Amino acid sequence: MSLIQLYDTTLRDGTQAEDISFLVADKIRVAEKLDELGIHYIEGGWPGSNPKDISFFREIKKVRLTQAKVAAFGSTRRAKTTPDKDNNIRTLIQAEPDTVTIFGKTWDFHVREALRISLEENLELINDSLAYLKNHVGEVVYDAEHFFDGYKANPDYALQTLKAAEAAGVDCIVLCDTNGGTLPHEIPAIMEKVRATVATPLGIHAHNDSECAVANSLMAVACGAVHVQGTINGFGERCGNANLCSIIPALKLKFGHECISDEQLKTLRILSRTIYEMANLIPNKHQPYVGNSAFAHKGGVHVSAIQRHPETYEHIRPELVGNVTRVLVSDLSGRSNILAKAEQFNINLDSKDPLTQEILENIKDLENRGFQFEGAEASFELLMRRALGTLRHYFSVIGFRVIDSKRHEEEKPSSEATVQVKVGGRIEHTAAEGNGPVNALDHALRKALESFYPQLRDVRLFDYKVRVLPAGKGTASMTRVLIESGDKTSRWGTVGVSDNIIDASYQALVDALLYKLVKDQEQAG
Amino acid sequence: MSLIQLYDTTLRDGTQAEDISFLVADKIRVAEKLDELGIHYIEGGWPGSNPKDISFFREIKKVRLTQAKVAAFGSTRRAKTTPDKDNNIRTLIQAEPDTVTIFGKTWDFHVREALRISLEENLELINDSLAYLKNHVGEVVYDAEHFFDGYKANPDYALQTLKAAEAAGVDCIVLCDTNGGTLPHEIPAIMEKVRATVATPLGIHAHNDSECAVANSLMAVACGAVHVQGTINGFGERCGNANLCSIIPALKLKFGHECISDEQLKTLRILSRTIYEMANLIPNKHQPYVGNSAFAHKGGVHVSAIQRHPETYEHIRPELVGNVTRVLVSDLSGRSNILAKAEQFNINLDSKDPLTQEILENIKDLENRGFQFEGAEASFELLMRRALGTLRHYFSVIGFRVIDSKRHEEEKPSSEATVQVKVGGRIEHTAAEGNGPVNALDHALRKALESFYPQLRDVRLFDYKVRVLPAGKGTASMTRVLIESGDKTSRWGTVGVSDNIIDASYQALVDALLYKLVKDQEQAG
Repeated sequence: MSLIQLYDTTLRDGTQAEDISFLVADKIRVAEKLDELGIHYIEGGWPGSNPKDISFFREIKKVRLTQAKVAAFGSTRRAKTTPDKDNNIRTLIQAEPDTVTIFGKTWDFHVREALRISLEENLELINDSLAYLKNHVGEVVYDAEHFFDGYKANPDYALQTLKAAEAAGVDCIVLCDTNGGTLPHEIPAIMEKVRATVATPLGIHAHNDSECAVANSLMAVACGAVHVQGTINGFGERCGNANLCSIIPALKLKFGHECISDEQLKTLRILSRTIYEMANLIPNKHQPYVGNSAFAHKGGVHVSAIQRHPETYEHIRPELVGNVTRVLVSDLSGRSNILAKAEQFNINLDSKDPLTQEILENIKDLENRGFQFEGAEASFELLMRRALGTLRHYFSVIGFRVIDSKRHEEEKPSSEATVQVKVGGRIEHTAAEGNGPVNALDHALRKALESFYPQLRDVRLFDYKVRVLPAGKGTASMTRVLIESGDKTSRWGTVGVSDNIIDASYQALVDALLYKLVKDQEQAG
Repeated sequence: MSLIQLYDTTLRDGTQAEDISFLVADKIRVAEKLDELGIHYIEGGWPGSNPKDISFFREIKKVRLTQAKVAAFGSTRRAKTTPDKDNNIRTLIQAEPDTVTIFGKTWDFHVREALRISLEENLELINDSLAYLKNHVGEVVYDAEHFFDGYKANPDYALQTLKAAEAAGVDCIVLCDTNGGTLPHEIPAIMEKVRATVATPLGIHAHNDSECAVANSLMAVACGAVHVQGTINGFGERCGNANLCSIIPALKLKFGHECISDEQLKTLRILSRTIYEMANLIPNKHQPYVGNSAFAHKGGVHVSAIQRHPETYEHIRPELVGNVTRVLVSDLSGRSNILAKAEQFNINLDSKDPLTQEILENIKDLENRGFQFEGAEASFELLMRRALGTLRHYFSVIGFRVIDSKRHEEEKPSSEATVQVKVGGRIEHTAAEGNGPVNALDHALRKALESFYPQLRDVRLFDYKVRVLPAGKGTASMTRVLIESGDKTSRWGTVGVSDNIIDASYQALVDALLYKLVKDQEQAG
């Protein structure tokens, strides 16, 4: 069937969410992940609105994306000026994106109250803004803001704004449910009217304020939309945007639309979790398709039935989106889970090998204690190698001590760390200062190891994330630390878990340095 | 307009969720809350499946519900017996509910594979089970399990099962999307067929596996359903059931159906949070209508607009469901956010007052240094009060020291903190241990302050997030710590930024305790 364009705005509308704030480096990594998933358009930001987004468009040019187009977002020109003199539009062109998406006003009420211009002027600035951009950028998408509310308030005017956009020769007209108040049964009649008015390909941009964003997007596709805007995990302002993690499998498995490949669809779950990690948010276990509970069955009738025929209580095969069936009474999940995970990291676990069972138990135990290996592939690989006996003994850690102090308000806080490690049969006892305890520990560890392994000088700590895990009954809450390190050629993530944040950080640091040694050995062959 | 029956199954289908288990006493309290909200039917459980549910039906008789009917759930009789001899059906009658709801098989595939009986036998046991119950119970509802999947597989047979139920004189036939795989655009044609086949009032029971449960329920109502089954907050197995907290406001405010009173609708948010509390789950802040972020605005453009006309970016007035508009402060935000924020804290910032400009500059400066005030409203309020000189002097911090150590691999890491604070002209120098440095600092700080401010004993630390911010040229990278604290009545967020994670945590901890003192003073008037 026909191809549907997937347009991701996690990096623009998604960052409007209360709890999400990406650094430019994060945005680049997210863009790479979206490209791997097979997303067609990546909306990187609004260069006119903040400097962080301008640098994103500069940085993304240095990245080779396999197929995704990079889109920049902005608005129609201001009143009483011309597009060539409008700063916002100039910045959009200077960002040199593959595609420009600008929004304009559809709702007469907004034109009068927000823009405070005449309805006629609004039609002009939609048309000349788009026409000007069309002459300077390869592809132009028009977001008709508040389309559905505008149509309900004044259908004729709402349709006129779309005609003004079509007259400018835009490549796609996107109907936005900006406030998320539209319900699915309203969509068919409205879209029929729109299709009778304009011939330009149509898109949908839905928000979740009525808990109908995914449904409205799919309804629009059923009514002829060929372009769907949304975010990973439904991140977005207020109640979020349409969730691409639910839309993509529906388009592929239920509508039969070819949007991404079967192989790419199998990576949906891990992609979803990676983006949660980057945003430092806890995944929603009940999330459709990709959540831990999405295919979890509680004992009884269901279980015996799904053993024989999964389709009796599962709307799709979980494997298709990289998820697994879980039976909660006797958790059969672990094994297949971890075999699948090992496969993701190219480690060949033979399920018949008795050693495999031991590794599985070990990993299940770690996961129960709060370890989490999405985003910590390096720690996972070290763990596997240890169990398989393919991890060379480079050094062993004995102990550490860190002192952080600040004696009076004006004084700059100081951190001093001492570590004891055993290298080549000798105990190295070193001390170092740093900006904070983790930095001090890092310095002390390197000091002890660099004389033996000079290549550790290349290792840099890029990111450090901490998550407090909810405490079980009567237990102290655990802390999980994820560290991203790298050298000139690559980057890797490591994890540590402890009820003590310093101890957890120490574990992740040690893994980070150890992985560097393993990796270099590998490459040396 | 017509009355829609609200049928809540939080206590039955809702408890199928992986993470939910209610005691009988909890179930009684939930039932009382549902009755107060105006729910028409409360499905209390499946007496045939477990003793806990049997005692619920015994206990609930002692409670005077204002209007809700209590429903008991079960299945059609087993094969090769008669209804009067079937244990499950006998138990249903013994539970003496106002209403009995039983499910039967619609999908021929299930009849053959799960029940392993002939299609004809299945029609008989649906009909005689319902007819028998109808003679012994006031009201009988029929749940057509897997109706939509069954209809797609074999429409004629699916419709025959409904006719068998209608022939028994049931009061309502509920079309179940048991696997949650149905999409809204499929519903109109199917329901048209159903309505052409049976005259019995129709209901809808949807699951959220396609993220369409709310949409499918509303679509069914648009197609003539008059009975809607769901759960509070969408609790339920796998991805959950249809969320009544999103369905009820849509029915009342968008369809104009009189299901509950305006006053009852205003209690929706509190009800939602109370049920989360009883289930010991953290509320979803992005939940439509009732979530903390449901009406939270971050973008500067949006904010200035909603100040003048809320309807520009809000699909309903939050007050109608007991929620409020919130304005977030962040790097995307303009002057208008900050002014609105001040207003929210009853702090009068006149945009012409030179002091306002100073505060704005101060905030911009702090944001450039890595501070982030969304999720840290408490720190933001303290900041404004300091600038305005309306912050009372409760205590001042002088210094701290933390020692974390682990002497050998087997040893459990330990943390000890000492702090010096000045309270009432006296210097308090205290020390304490803890699980990790932050916990130790927290203990030491309280130890120093609790004798002066006993109310600090109520403060709990709920969440702790750390973010490393990228280093500028020649500068150390900064660490941002966000802490969420709370007491019996409310929760608040504080932030600290430093190149030392312990120092940043210390700042956020101090703000958290200071805010508690300010808040209590406010309430004391």
